[in-house]
Amino acid sequence: MSLSQALQYLQENHDRFLAELEAFLRIPSVSTTEKHAADIARAANWVADSLRALGAQNVAVVPTGQHPVVYGFLPAAEAEAPTVLIYGHYDVQPPEPLDLWETPPFEPTVRGDRLYARGATDMKGQVMASLKAVEAAAHGGLPVNIKFIIEGEEEIGSPDLAGFIAEHKDLLAADVCLNPDSGMLGPDWPTITYALRGLAYFELRVFGPDHDLHSGIYGGVVHNPAQALAELIAGMHDENGRVTLPGFYDKVRPLSADEREALSHLPFDPTTFYLKQTGVPKLWGEPEYTPVERTGARPTLEINGLYSGFIEKGAKTVIPSYAMAKISCRLVPDQDPDEVAEQLKAYLKAHAPATIRWELDVMAGGPASVTDIHTPAVQALARAMEATWGSKPFYRREGGSIPVVGQMQQILGLDSVLTGFGLPDANLHAPNENLHLPTWQKGMEALVRFFYLYPQAAR
Amino acid sequence: MSLSQALQYLQENHDRFLAELEAFLRIPSVSTTEKHAADIARAANWVADSLRALGAQNVAVVPTGQHPVVYGFLPAAEAEAPTVLIYGHYDVQPPEPLDLWETPPFEPTVRGDRLYARGATDMKGQVMASLKAVEAAAHGGLPVNIKFIIEGEEEIGSPDLAGFIAEHKDLLAADVCLNPDSGMLGPDWPTITYALRGLAYFELRVFGPDHDLHSGIYGGVVHNPAQALAELIAGMHDENGRVTLPGFYDKVRPLSADEREALSHLPFDPTTFYLKQTGVPKLWGEPEYTPVERTGARPTLEINGLYSGFIEKGAKTVIPSYAMAKISCRLVPDQDPDEVAEQLKAYLKAHAPATIRWELDVMAGGPASVTDIHTPAVQALARAMEATWGSKPFYRREGGSIPVVGQMQQILGLDSVLTGFGLPDANLHAPNENLHLPTWQKGMEALVRFFYLYPQAAR
Repeated sequence: MSLSQALQYLQENHDRFLAELEAFLRIPSVSTTEKHAADIARAANWVADSLRALGAQNVAVVPTGQHPVVYGFLPAAEAEAPTVLIYGHYDVQPPEPLDLWETPPFEPTVRGDRLYARGATDMKGQVMASLKAVEAAAHGGLPVNIKFIIEGEEEIGSPDLAGFIAEHKDLLAADVCLNPDSGMLGPDWPTITYALRGLAYFELRVFGPDHDLHSGIYGGVVHNPAQALAELIAGMHDENGRVTLPGFYDKVRPLSADEREALSHLPFDPTTFYLKQTGVPKLWGEPEYTPVERTGARPTLEINGLYSGFIEKGAKTVIPSYAMAKISCRLVPDQDPDEVAEQLKAYLKAHAPATIRWELDVMAGGPASVTDIHTPAVQALARAMEATWGSKPFYRREGGSIPVVGQMQQILGLDSVLTGFGLPDANLHAPNENLHLPTWQKGMEALVRFFYLYPQAAR
Repeated sequence: MSLSQALQYLQENHDRFLAELEAFLRIPSVSTTEKHAADIARAANWVADSLRALGAQNVAVVPTGQHPVVYGFLPAAEAEAPTVLIYGHYDVQPPEPLDLWETPPFEPTVRGDRLYARGATDMKGQVMASLKAVEAAAHGGLPVNIKFIIEGEEEIGSPDLAGFIAEHKDLLAADVCLNPDSGMLGPDWPTITYALRGLAYFELRVFGPDHDLHSGIYGGVVHNPAQALAELIAGMHDENGRVTLPGFYDKVRPLSADEREALSHLPFDPTTFYLKQTGVPKLWGEPEYTPVERTGARPTLEINGLYSGFIEKGAKTVIPSYAMAKISCRLVPDQDPDEVAEQLKAYLKAHAPATIRWELDVMAGGPASVTDIHTPAVQALARAMEATWGSKPFYRREGGSIPVVGQMQQILGLDSVLTGFGLPDANLHAPNENLHLPTWQKGMEALVRFFYLYPQAAR
């Protein structure tokens, strides 16, 4: 069985692969709310069954503190072959707000050349691309050993993954980790990600009166907690969009002139690109950095949610008893998520007025990571992409956070090759998430080529 | 039939009156959400049936733009008697948040000497006190003509009431309006309210990206609308708690030295009182005014609700596409609600950044009012209260807003006598709203006495 036969197998089985992906997407495996616990279990078993169908050995659904990890192993046809550990996650983001979806999030629907569903790109589509590339490559004998580690807690910050990896070092031993949880800059621009931002996630609650008050009777003597929260949030950035938490930038590694130069070469105008992708009237952020630098190489603080008082249709003249904000920071090397939590607490201690009480929950976190682009695996993937798309891949820093990349490095000493076949308008974490099917198909081809090219590069 | 017989009738029928109030409270007549339209209609018909049972004439449930007004007339036993127009409303505030109620809001429950239910004090309890005082006084021949005007839109700002009054001037002609929608300072401190604040209510929506964004991919280039909203809200007060809308204080009538002196005489320490009633760690507001002045005689701007992004349990790393705040201002003489709306728009035009879009809905409004405490009706009620409680009533400015008081003055030329028999800890507009039953009973006695004393005072 040759590479060309494996690629032909991919073409011939495209419709079946798509049908299997749709079945996977129909499982609403939302990890952040308890009500989907049964769906999470169903998705884990679905992945395990798929691995068994590939002929994987030692397939296991391993319980953790919350959601299980799925493991499986496929040996190479020849001894001495290198081992690729493929990382993925079967959990998805919550689909809300539901009313903004054109078709239901868990009823996969093809419109044009895109498949719409929660998880289509992030990352059930990528997990399926990996499984099916292995199936195609394995048809006549795998050129590499393959191990799969597919977790169910990525969208809640992977709280149990580091423990699982540490407890199963021998099982997971490999030469490189392939992580397809990143994405592409455009359908004709294959992309390898070499840096990721870290994450620190918080819930801040501000308490005012011990019960909701009539705003006529008490308005003027109590500090409205929604207003107090707004004041605290407003103070978290200065007028130039810089985060004001004390010490926030102390450990931020400065961008070198070389790297700024490299990041300035893109196949598109980034301002036009971001305006089009977001629909905002004007971009925002630190003026001394370019948009690409701001999203990839600078830390941020974002408000992910805000709640207080009466938010239904109509009017209610109430002074709310409390207000809540979900706040997250994207971190860059060498920021530490625990230190950022302390910085936020220090900010609140310094700025929260005596007229309110506050609580801060530290929810999840992981550091940023930067990987070497000169490793055999990255170079093999670059050649595989060039052979598939006809152009060399772009190397980029990505703004998202994939804690497992740092964990693979720290616990197993494994470099990760970061890629993925979703597009910028895939609506990750948003309504109408979608997968561009022609790019998905090319992604599977590139992975098959990678499995063939990597053993030579690693030699 | 004498006054003493009327008072005895009240005592003897207390249990029946309480049972009728409970039946009234079981109707969830929430005016602000469409889902209670049938309950609103049921409450209106319940009031009309009660008026018919009293022997009222010309009882009518009159449709308006939204919720009907109930009217009824009871003639005095003797010609030449003055006419009292009794105002009330049968609608109630929404009961949310439901989980903070000890017993369900629409299942009236007596615990100790209080009756717990949404509307128990605001103001079904007061409407029932008026109906039953009339029933008792009418038993042997009413000393005054009584007209009832009971609306269903008070909790949404009475948008149709001014139109109804203007169209029915002859029907509503009277000598004075009795409005029991205010309250008492404490169970032993009967109170007549002589000033009310006005209201202007808004919904502000801030729009950022045209869909929710992944905070990793886009964090750093778009102005988070939740943050932008927080920045706009934070700027609406200065560090002394003064509202910063341009021109907001221009028309605020200064407090005279006499009035500040009068407002300083209270049967309790206001700081201790407000700390206890609200449970806040420290009072807030303009330092150059006392708490009583701030709640009664100074305008405010409050955040009544706040929403953006992901607010369920757990974490979601999203940049929300929009953020919303419900904002209301309590107004004092001579502020104009339309002008305040223009001031808020001017503030937003001056301060909203070019990185977001915004919309402002102007929802409801009414001016503040001050009434003369030397009218025959106020003096008759003062004597009635002194006879009932054994002490003279307190005169106070109240922070709440009752637009009908201004409308009665402007359209019918009628002064209002403002009172009510709810206590400060009645939890108006909040969970566990309640009515202190001994005070309610005394309130009915005071009203019966008022019906007997007013004709003499008015002569």
